Amino acid sequence: MPKFTSSLDTLTEALRCLPGVGPKSAQRMAYHLLQHDRDGAQQLGRALTDAMQQVRHCQLCNTFTESEICSTCSDSERDATLLCVVETPADQMMIEQTLTFKGMYFVLMGRLSPLDGIGPRDIHLERLIERAANGAVKEVVLATNFTSEGEATAHYIGEMLKARGLSVSRLARGVPVGGELEYVDAGTIARAMLDRRAT
Amino acid sequence: MPKFTSSLDTLTEALRCLPGVGPKSAQRMAYHLLQHDRDGAQQLGRALTDAMQQVRHCQLCNTFTESEICSTCSDSERDATLLCVVETPADQMMIEQTLTFKGMYFVLMGRLSPLDGIGPRDIHLERLIERAANGAVKEVVLATNFTSEGEATAHYIGEMLKARGLSVSRLARGVPVGGELEYVDAGTIARAMLDRRAT
Repeated sequence: MPKFTSSLDTLTEALRCLPGVGPKSAQRMAYHLLQHDRDGAQQLGRALTDAMQQVRHCQLCNTFTESEICSTCSDSERDATLLCVVETPADQMMIEQTLTFKGMYFVLMGRLSPLDGIGPRDIHLERLIERAANGAVKEVVLATNFTSEGEATAHYIGEMLKARGLSVSRLARGVPVGGELEYVDAGTIARAMLDRRAT
Repeated sequence: MPKFTSSLDTLTEALRCLPGVGPKSAQRMAYHLLQHDRDGAQQLGRALTDAMQQVRHCQLCNTFTESEICSTCSDSERDATLLCVVETPADQMMIEQTLTFKGMYFVLMGRLSPLDGIGPRDIHLERLIERAANGAVKEVVLATNFTSEGEATAHYIGEMLKARGLSVSRLARGVPVGGELEYVDAGTIARAMLDRRAT
């Protein structure tokens, strides 16, 4: 085999940190960038460094932000009596796009998954309790995915919050069972948001 | 929609320079890196910057290298009387893996494609002629892909080199018509290399 340059090998290996990119895709990406888009690659390099240094988690809702408190949490026009719990920032964006929810969020950044060793601590449940029990929140809407892990997470969180006297609801089952929020159309999510039921 | 941080938006947009990555994949990649692999992302950022600055083209064979002359071209044990013309470094690697070819290479970094505005100048044919007419080369093996564009490229190069009195051969048609070298198994490429025919 021809010995290619070490920085090309390093790049090919480094590209494999991207989800769904194997050795062959990584090689194609490296060649593509070197041959056709060196400027884009330079920009991507800088963007990666900048984002990793600057992006952290919102102190209140745990989503990605560059400040202490994200723009959603610091928006005084939003309804602080409603708190919607989602798994990921992508789920949060999908719900925002439906325009049916004007409350606050808490982003778990994951879901309970005992098989993967992900427990209550890993999805920041102590911070969720702190947030939900701040006196302003009247209702917690559970909007985790309708997968088995998402349902288990919703059940766990629901029981935990109800034990603390909070009112808890769940997105209506307009969302197809087994589906993930990120891939459902906004109309379906809108119905599910409007039909949410007490648990 | 929640306003996410500008460096996250910048990263998502920058990831789209990768081949086959659309808005949704870019978003997933950005979230994945921020949540699960910040070290890998930092390394990728550095690898991109390093590779784009350091990798250039070999003066002789035109493949990617960090030096003036690549390791294959500067290997005195290789047969300088044979010159194999390929479209990409990935094709070159596939041929090397068959262990049936010990000559030199010329990497076009593309193929003739009039519809995309890619002409003889873009695939460095003047440098190929210079290389092939250096006195040492006795036979040029055309190993462009067996697609219509690759075949046209091989025909064009073949006529050009034969007009200069060089002996030209083509990989045997063991390679499936319409197939691309990069995805063919090494055994098929090995047969094609052994059965190459004069044109």
